[in-house]
Amino acid sequence: MSYRVAVLAGDGIGPEVMTQARRVLQAVEQKFNLVIDYQEYDVGGIAIDNHGTPLPNSTLRGCEQSDAILFGSVGGPKWENLPPEQQPERGALLPLRGHFELFCNLRPATLHPGLEALSPLRADISEKGFDILVVRELTGGIYFGKPKGREGSGDQEFAYDTMRYSRSEIERIARNAFIAAQSRRQKVTSVDKANVLACSVLWREVVEQVAAEFSDVELEHIYIDNATMQLLKRPNEFDVMLCSNLFGDIISDECAMLTGSMGLLPSASTNSKGFGLYEPAGGSAPDIAGKGVANPVAQILSAAMMLRYSLNQNAAAQCIEEAVAKALSNGYLTGELISPGSEHTAKTTKQMGDIIVQYI
Amino acid sequence: MSYRVAVLAGDGIGPEVMTQARRVLQAVEQKFNLVIDYQEYDVGGIAIDNHGTPLPNSTLRGCEQSDAILFGSVGGPKWENLPPEQQPERGALLPLRGHFELFCNLRPATLHPGLEALSPLRADISEKGFDILVVRELTGGIYFGKPKGREGSGDQEFAYDTMRYSRSEIERIARNAFIAAQSRRQKVTSVDKANVLACSVLWREVVEQVAAEFSDVELEHIYIDNATMQLLKRPNEFDVMLCSNLFGDIISDECAMLTGSMGLLPSASTNSKGFGLYEPAGGSAPDIAGKGVANPVAQILSAAMMLRYSLNQNAAAQCIEEAVAKALSNGYLTGELISPGSEHTAKTTKQMGDIIVQYI
Ligand SMILES: CC(C)[C@H](C(=O)O)[C@@H](O)C(=O)O
Ligand SMILES: CC(C)[C@H](C(=O)O)[C@@H](O)C(=O)O
Repeated sequence: MSYRVAVLAGDGIGPEVMTQARRVLQAVEQKFNLVIDYQEYDVGGIAIDNHGTPLPNSTLRGCEQSDAILFGSVGGPKWENLPPEQQPERGALLPLRGHFELFCNLRPATLHPGLEALSPLRADISEKGFDILVVRELTGGIYFGKPKGREGSGDQEFAYDTMRYSRSEIERIARNAFIAAQSRRQKVTSVDKANVLACSVLWREVVEQVAAEFSDVELEHIYIDNATMQLLKRPNEFDVMLCSNLFGDIISDECAMLTGSMGLLPSASTNSKGFGLYEPAGGSAPDIAGKGVANPVAQILSAAMMLRYSLNQNAAAQCIEEAVAKALSNGYLTGELISPGSEHTAKTTKQMGDIIVQYI
Repeated sequence: MSYRVAVLAGDGIGPEVMTQARRVLQAVEQKFNLVIDYQEYDVGGIAIDNHGTPLPNSTLRGCEQSDAILFGSVGGPKWENLPPEQQPERGALLPLRGHFELFCNLRPATLHPGLEALSPLRADISEKGFDILVVRELTGGIYFGKPKGREGSGDQEFAYDTMRYSRSEIERIARNAFIAAQSRRQKVTSVDKANVLACSVLWREVVEQVAAEFSDVELEHIYIDNATMQLLKRPNEFDVMLCSNLFGDIISDECAMLTGSMGLLPSASTNSKGFGLYEPAGGSAPDIAGKGVANPVAQILSAAMMLRYSLNQNAAAQCIEEAVAKALSNGYLTGELISPGSEHTAKTTKQMGDIIVQYI
């Protein structure tokens, strides 16, 4: 099998963790007889520096000619004072999501066995572990709804955004959530604010209709405000959390932080044709960039998600995931994962790559 | 001094905690020579049962003739399956907020010394304590923005909500946040999503203009997604959090849950004339209603906020707050605040009222 992948390493730690992901991919390509052609393109701050825009046309065209995008991370202090729509993160990610209609965002947040102490949660809560998959709608809602703008002047000046959801937009993301739940713990928690938002009332209605097709999956509804609370008390009771764009932004970040190990979390954003963008949940971490200490696991697991969802190479994906799990459970950890007083010594970005390649 | 207060005890534990708040108020009235005339009105589920609507006209008229509303809590399983806009919580609170233009919502979330173990946060985080005041805009944004509704049919059916903020709406809530910060730890963290929302871009601009009038207060901006994360890691670094309506709903609930002692948290919702609605942060807790075990402290502290913000009786307010603090630090606690293995025995709703009255 032969594929084409657009590599957008970006800024900060992006390039160095991408190097390790590429090595791991190379190892599974050999093992599973895959041929992947990688093309590198600028994105984010480096693209602003080289082309004057965070998402150059050449990058977009390159992505169009690929089966998937493997994305690093973008942003840094150098570009922080640009107007919002020109900043690396917003200016690259939102147009990519919109252009390729990447409506389905999967953000797993798992507390890895042995790493419970990293969670900011109380020991008796974190020791129960949790394994949550946030399924976030990514191309609708208040992110893309029109009209959006500003009018009037003086005291009377006002700004407005439109949250908007169609039945079909809700249906397709809901269906993905239920399918995901079927191969997990058969539970979907749909997050909304149906006591206030018209969009949420429709959301709830459509989600219930979709649920009727999945009699093996339990559905519960929760208000966004209550969801942020219950996640703190009983994270282990959630399985799949189905969210609109804005609520998914919030809930997925809360879940990520609850693991205490953001450097381990991948994400996938796919469209209805299986094309997708795969990126670590964490940011570009400019403070540690270039030091060789960043955790490459999130990038490596993002590559695994790419193999699974866009390249249909489930066995190769699983092989990477097992190698990562083995490395972690054998105590191969980068510095930020090591609690004070632990017997482990910090591994470098490259050492993490080495061991995972070895376990493939 | 003579005042008139509308008492809306509502459902669930509302009436029983209200009884204790009234006793405490009576004690400070005597001590500070105040005359408060209380009139009781139905609200929420009980109002649905008695009048067919969660906010009867008679209740609204009674509130109009008062200096403040002391609100208990509303809702319960009996009314859960009504359409959203008829439900006790939404159907009573939103119209009251709108009618009286209660734009300024203050929600303090404090980890009481000695009660750190109740927080769902890891011991080394909670032991540092925290003391956050969420200042939430309460009559604008996506809650009240027009148009809001539903159109089309079949797959093409869609729903929409409008987030809308005017310069003057942002200005007045921001000013309140900075004033509050002046008598606290001189820091305002403004929560927005300026990388996506036009409303947030205006929000940030106006907040910076207001900040220029308060050179003694530090201002920082944070995205809502990052805010939910940072609160888990370093809650002690926040002082005043300034939020729009929707973000304040989410952040204030997260903060409340981080204390682990929702039964202690009051809230105030005031307008520009000093009129206000005062209510506990927790809900109607139907599961423990009528058992005499509910914590009356949130209701009692709500009464204190009422004395401070609507009746201008700061000394009386402080007297209640000190009595509550003394009761808690002397180990007077209701059951839900007592950790397993503690030497304390659970006090009833009435015993909590007794001791606080005694300390007045
Ligand atoms: C950068 C920003 C526009 C983006 C979002 O809000 O979706 C980010 O927070 C994310 O979650 O991927
Ligand atoms: C009941 C609901 C409409 C309300 C809100 O969203 O404001 C509640 O959650 C609150 O925070 O007071």
